[in-house]
Amino acid sequence: MLTEPKIAIIGSGSWATALAKILLNNVDRLNWYFRNPDSIEQFKRFKHNPNYLRGIEFDTGRIDFFSDITEVVEQSDVLVLAIPSAFLDRSLADLKTNFNHKYIVSAIKGIVPEGNQIVGQYLNQNYKVPYERIGVIAGPCHAEEVALERLSYLTIACPDIKRARDFAFKLECPYIRAHVSDDIFGTEYASVLKNIIAIASGIVHGLRYGDNFQAVLVANAIQEIKRFVDKVHPITRDIKSSAYLGDLLVTAYSQFSRNRTFGTMIGKGYTTRTAQLEMHMVAEGYYATKSIHEINQEYKVNIPICEAVYNILYEGATPSVEIRRLTEKLR
Amino acid sequence: MLTEPKIAIIGSGSWATALAKILLNNVDRLNWYFRNPDSIEQFKRFKHNPNYLRGIEFDTGRIDFFSDITEVVEQSDVLVLAIPSAFLDRSLADLKTNFNHKYIVSAIKGIVPEGNQIVGQYLNQNYKVPYERIGVIAGPCHAEEVALERLSYLTIACPDIKRARDFAFKLECPYIRAHVSDDIFGTEYASVLKNIIAIASGIVHGLRYGDNFQAVLVANAIQEIKRFVDKVHPITRDIKSSAYLGDLLVTAYSQFSRNRTFGTMIGKGYTTRTAQLEMHMVAEGYYATKSIHEINQEYKVNIPICEAVYNILYEGATPSVEIRRLTEKLR
Repeated sequence: MLTEPKIAIIGSGSWATALAKILLNNVDRLNWYFRNPDSIEQFKRFKHNPNYLRGIEFDTGRIDFFSDITEVVEQSDVLVLAIPSAFLDRSLADLKTNFNHKYIVSAIKGIVPEGNQIVGQYLNQNYKVPYERIGVIAGPCHAEEVALERLSYLTIACPDIKRARDFAFKLECPYIRAHVSDDIFGTEYASVLKNIIAIASGIVHGLRYGDNFQAVLVANAIQEIKRFVDKVHPITRDIKSSAYLGDLLVTAYSQFSRNRTFGTMIGKGYTTRTAQLEMHMVAEGYYATKSIHEINQEYKVNIPICEAVYNILYEGATPSVEIRRLTEKLR
Repeated sequence: MLTEPKIAIIGSGSWATALAKILLNNVDRLNWYFRNPDSIEQFKRFKHNPNYLRGIEFDTGRIDFFSDITEVVEQSDVLVLAIPSAFLDRSLADLKTNFNHKYIVSAIKGIVPEGNQIVGQYLNQNYKVPYERIGVIAGPCHAEEVALERLSYLTIACPDIKRARDFAFKLECPYIRAHVSDDIFGTEYASVLKNIIAIASGIVHGLRYGDNFQAVLVANAIQEIKRFVDKVHPITRDIKSSAYLGDLLVTAYSQFSRNRTFGTMIGKGYTTRTAQLEMHMVAEGYYATKSIHEINQEYKVNIPICEAVYNILYEGATPSVEIRRLTEKLR
C-alpha cells in the first residue's frame, strides 16, 4: 500500500494559515514551518496562529511544527510555499538539503526580487526543480473569506496536469472548489500584475475618479495582462477565467486590498515613503511594479497602466498628471 | 453651408438628462421630448429636470421642449431614444410621421418586450429603419457620475462607422471620451445581459456569498455574455472592451444598481413582488431575464447564470438551492 505524500506548509502568514485549514479537511497530518520558534509555542498553547486569522482553531495534535527549513523539507513530499516573495531567497539560503523528488507548490504571488523571477523560474533556475514538479495556486481568494468558510474557487496550475489534479483533490472541501490548468507562467505573472493594477485602482480612487472610470481601467487592465502573459509565455489560455480575470477583480474591487489602500494614499497625495510608514507595511505591488518594469525592458509589451504606476512610484511623476496622460491611452 | 443636424433627446429620465448635459457642450440648441407637459413647465421654471439629476442646471434658452412625439421627430435629424424599453412601443404608437432620413441612436438598455427585440431590431423590423441609420450608446456610464462631471467613456456603435464618428464627436467633452464600434447587436445584447448578471450578483450577495465568489461569478458572466453575443451575432469583437466588460463591471460591482439591489432582496428572501413594491420600481433586468430566456429557446447558448436567475424569478426556484446548483457549473 502506498503511503500518503506528506504535505508541508512553508510560511506563517494569513494565506499559509488559510491553506492549512483547507488541507486539514483532507489530510490526517500536516507539516508546518514557522521561521520563528516562539510563534510555534504560542500556536500550540492557544490552538491558533498567534498573528494571523486568529479565529481559526486548529487541532494541533494533527500538525507537526518545524522551525528548521532543512528538516521540514527532508520530512515532506509536497512543499507549499507561502512566504512573501521578497523573503523567499533568504529563507531558502539556510537549506542544507535539495528538492530532489519533491513537488513544490507556490502560493506566493510576487516576484523574487534578486533575479526578477517568478517563483517557478526561481525554483527551476536556482534549485534545478523541473517545471513538471512545480505547481501554482491561483485565486481569486482572500484568506479572510476562507476563514469564514465562504465558497471560493482555486486553480492549481502545473505542466504535469496529473500532479495538479492530485493536489487539487487535496483542496476540495465544502467551501473550496479546485480546478486545474497547465499555465504556471501565466497564472503567476497575472497574479503579480493584478497587484500593480490594484495600486492603479487605488490611485485613481484617491484622485476622485468614479466608478465609470474604474470600470474602464479594469477592462483595459485585463487586456494589458493578456498582452503581457501572451508575450512572455505564448500558450492558449482564456484570460477571462477565474484564475486571471477573477483574481484581478477580487483585488481591484476590494476595499481591503493592501495594494489598493496603498494606491489610494498615493492618489491622495501621500509620498510613497509616508504611505508605507502609515500602513506599517509595504504593499507587494510596490516591488512588483519595479520588477515588471525591468522585465518589460526585454519584452517591450504595451502596458500603459503598469508604466503609469511605475512613473508615479519610482520616477516622481505627479499622480494627477500621470493618470491624466493614462486616460488618453485607454478606451 | 450645411446646417448642423438637429439633435433630439426622447425621454426624461436620468440617462436622458445626462446625455442632454453632455450634448449641450457641443451643440447650440437641443430638442427635448418629455411625455408629460407639466414636467416641461417645471423644468423651464426651475432650470433643471424636476425629477432626475436635479443638480444639473440647464440653460433652458438653448432647449426646445416638445410633448408631441410627431412634432419632435419632424423637427429633428438625430433622435436619441432614452425611454425605458418597456414603454418604447407605447410611446411611438402615437407617431404620425415616419423615420425616413433620420439617424436614430438608442440609449436604451433593454429588450422591447412586445416582440423580444433589442431596440435596433425593433426599429428595423417595425419601422423599416435601415441598420446603417441606427446607432447605440454603450457604457460603462452611471448618469449620476456624468452629473458630477467624472470622467466616463462611451462607445457609439453603428454599422456606418462614419455616422458613429460624427455622433461620438458630439459627445466628446472634458469629462467624456467617446469611441466607436460597428457592433450594434453585441453592445445592445451585452448591455441587456449585464442587468441579469447584476441581479445574480445581488442574489449571491443577499445569500451571503463573499467577494471571492463574486469575482468567480463575474468572470464566468463575461464568458457567458461572449458565448451569447457571438452566437446571436457572430462578428469579431473583443468582449474585454469597455463597452462590454466595462459595462458589466460598473453594474455588477455598483452598490447603487437597481438590478443588484433587487437581486439582493431576492437573495435575502423577499418575494419578487415584495421586492418590487419595496423598491417602488421594477428593475429592468427583471423583464430582460424573461426575454433572454425566451430568445435563447432558439439559440440554445449555455447561459447558466441567466438561467438560474430565470428559475428564481419566474419558476419559483429557491434562491439558495438554485445558486448552489449554479456553483457546480462555474469554474
